[in-house]
Amino acid sequence: MEGLSKALARYIVSVRYEDLPEVVIAFTKLCILDYFGSAISGAPTKPVQMMDAMVRDMGGNPQAAVVTGGSTSVMNAAFVNGAASHISELDDIHKASIIHAATVVIPAALAVGEWKGRSGKELIEAVVAGYEVCYRIGEAVSPSHYYYWHNTATCGTFGAAAAAAKLLGLNEEQMVEALGSAGTQAAGLWEFIEDGAMSKQLHPGKAAMNGVISALLAAKGFTGAKKILEGRRGFFNAMSEDYDVSKITDGLGKQHKIMENSFKVHASCRHTHHAMDLAIELKKERDIQPDEVESITVNTYQVAINITDNEEPDTVYAAKFSLQYCTALALVTGEGGLDQFTEEALWDETIRAVMKKVHVASVPEIDRAYPEKWGARLVVKLRSGEEIVKETDFPKGDPENPVSEADLVRKFMRMAGQTEGIHPKDFSEKVLELEHIDDVRQLMAPFAALEPMAE
Amino acid sequence: MEGLSKALARYIVSVRYEDLPEVVIAFTKLCILDYFGSAISGAPTKPVQMMDAMVRDMGGNPQAAVVTGGSTSVMNAAFVNGAASHISELDDIHKASIIHAATVVIPAALAVGEWKGRSGKELIEAVVAGYEVCYRIGEAVSPSHYYYWHNTATCGTFGAAAAAAKLLGLNEEQMVEALGSAGTQAAGLWEFIEDGAMSKQLHPGKAAMNGVISALLAAKGFTGAKKILEGRRGFFNAMSEDYDVSKITDGLGKQHKIMENSFKVHASCRHTHHAMDLAIELKKERDIQPDEVESITVNTYQVAINITDNEEPDTVYAAKFSLQYCTALALVTGEGGLDQFTEEALWDETIRAVMKKVHVASVPEIDRAYPEKWGARLVVKLRSGEEIVKETDFPKGDPENPVSEADLVRKFMRMAGQTEGIHPKDFSEKVLELEHIDDVRQLMAPFAALEPMAE
Repeated sequence: MEGLSKALARYIVSVRYEDLPEVVIAFTKLCILDYFGSAISGAPTKPVQMMDAMVRDMGGNPQAAVVTGGSTSVMNAAFVNGAASHISELDDIHKASIIHAATVVIPAALAVGEWKGRSGKELIEAVVAGYEVCYRIGEAVSPSHYYYWHNTATCGTFGAAAAAAKLLGLNEEQMVEALGSAGTQAAGLWEFIEDGAMSKQLHPGKAAMNGVISALLAAKGFTGAKKILEGRRGFFNAMSEDYDVSKITDGLGKQHKIMENSFKVHASCRHTHHAMDLAIELKKERDIQPDEVESITVNTYQVAINITDNEEPDTVYAAKFSLQYCTALALVTGEGGLDQFTEEALWDETIRAVMKKVHVASVPEIDRAYPEKWGARLVVKLRSGEEIVKETDFPKGDPENPVSEADLVRKFMRMAGQTEGIHPKDFSEKVLELEHIDDVRQLMAPFAALEPMAE
Repeated sequence: MEGLSKALARYIVSVRYEDLPEVVIAFTKLCILDYFGSAISGAPTKPVQMMDAMVRDMGGNPQAAVVTGGSTSVMNAAFVNGAASHISELDDIHKASIIHAATVVIPAALAVGEWKGRSGKELIEAVVAGYEVCYRIGEAVSPSHYYYWHNTATCGTFGAAAAAAKLLGLNEEQMVEALGSAGTQAAGLWEFIEDGAMSKQLHPGKAAMNGVISALLAAKGFTGAKKILEGRRGFFNAMSEDYDVSKITDGLGKQHKIMENSFKVHASCRHTHHAMDLAIELKKERDIQPDEVESITVNTYQVAINITDNEEPDTVYAAKFSLQYCTALALVTGEGGLDQFTEEALWDETIRAVMKKVHVASVPEIDRAYPEKWGARLVVKLRSGEEIVKETDFPKGDPENPVSEADLVRKFMRMAGQTEGIHPKDFSEKVLELEHIDDVRQLMAPFAALEPMAE
């Protein structure tokens, strides 16, 4: 029987921009834009600055830009840009494989793409292929793998290798070798979560870098295990209790799994998003004033209540896990991004007054539909006696309730807004016209020109 | 209860050259010399040259020399020098943990030591600590870990991190973080063996590099899991069926496990070494001529027969796994190093004539003692009617049958002899006087000055 790496390799080589449906191209550009928002907002944070300082000590040829400013080697750039995009907790997520693909696939693709002067179209091909490969591998080892292993890191390594290899123009045989080297470098244990350690950022950085190493070595003729996934002593057997080979091959080349990607639009726990969506929708429809409100009821599933029923959040972090606070914040401000979750907003009297009027409860009909549907019902009673009811089955950003391009551009503008030297509007327009860019260097030029931040 | 990382960290910090017994210092220098022999002989090989070319493309500040010639970043140097020393199949081995420690610990130590201008004494401390840490972790996860995982790579990452962290002068807390980052990067699957893929060299190179990354990041304040070994979602639970925590702590700081290291003196399968030792000993005692020999019998344990009973080897590789050939080669040449296992020697008429007279067989009394003893009995019958009998319980290089310094220097001279710009005699003398070297740069200068080999 043909090996799984061979099947994946053939798929990766076969991906062509010209064959991609327009909707896939448009969606992939949004994934890339969304990646940049997370990466730019993560660049100044401590873990990323430490990783950046470390690779600056090492040095490297100026081949690829880093979001922390300046240029370094392809390996180093993948490392830093991978870490940067996985700290603001707003990067994309694939529910079935539990992988944040952007944070590993896109930095690998950007670094190689810039180094080799590839076009925007080629970048899109590489990202589509990279997402497909890691989503499939993640689904194949779910759910057991996830108990010990950080799928974004382990499975993500294959996705990064696929994207890097695609942009290096490797052939099928070389692609198989690259996947072999990727799998034998795959690592990333969940143990760090016990201490809230910075491994969270190290993992995607290393996965992106290891994927790049795998592709660069394969381009030189370096060999790896040809059946790294299904082999007797390979990735599946070593790192999962159960695995489903069909997840790799079923429909391969006939679908575009990147379309299953979920975006996060609010900077809070996912279990607060449904109610925030509804409150923001209401705020847009009619500008209800805080003192018009008599009471607000949020009905949802039990898991959301377990995790986010908090009447008195006293830190910004806790506020992001308070369904009461998040609902009030959304209704008062009409937004829920990084700019809204501030120390000032936490103690804002108007928001706090509305928060006191919010009551949350689980109801059977919504609870039964979970986890297929992450639903909520919002009931706003006004002093006038009027009662407004709104419902949703899926938080915004899920494939079943897609965000608009405008929403994601707005999210990007908020996340990228604070970096000197980056003009968010120009930059987002460039990403959304990526297919017209001849050379990824043009896209990365603003970062290359940035002064590195002080440590 | 105190975490295992904390206990290891305290030990690593506590290692002081002044406290090391002379015999440990002398032995550690031999480990380092032996490392260089393997690294120098591996430098021109294809996989190493590919890895070298890859990091040359990337570039890096000239911080540390590579055995392939020139200088590069600490990370890159650890990568290339780790790979180079694991290809000639003559690097050291620890039986209980199944780890080749030299190939991961020493390149990490050399790279950081050179960069930071550390002394020979500090290098010795780091190597002692690095061996101790990875041997203990390897023993703790044996035997189940080894089925899927290449211990040299996975456990070796901790040893490399320990050595690098020691030379960076990290304190106990930073050392714990470094071990956390090391464990969450630990990787290396045996699947490559099915294809004889080059992952064999990638593994120690990456382990050395990942260890260095862990230490460099910890020096910047980067955090990792504090219980990466024994934690619920840590290294032990994720990567072994059974593990023995006592192997980490029992006797820690009171013994020097580097002394359990085995050296290989012959360039063939370990199961041929006992008979070769005896034949070489005989050749030294009296110069028996090939045509004096009537017959030779090798009695040994069954496993040796299973793997090395081959009357007609037809490649150099097969010759290394032929007990008949190896015994004949040793008796005719009085040696068994890399220089002896050549295409010419394979078809040498004199050696082939003696080979035909060699009979091999398992005998119960030797077989019963295996695997504690890897014994053999050599019976040489001469045409004169005289019968010479020689026996051994341990192949030379085992701790129970140590090789002499002179043997290891001779092995080094053979392995290093072919590299232009390296004067094996001067270099070995320098290593054997390592404690008098003020700065590791002096040791590495000949490599830094070497012209990089053509790809």
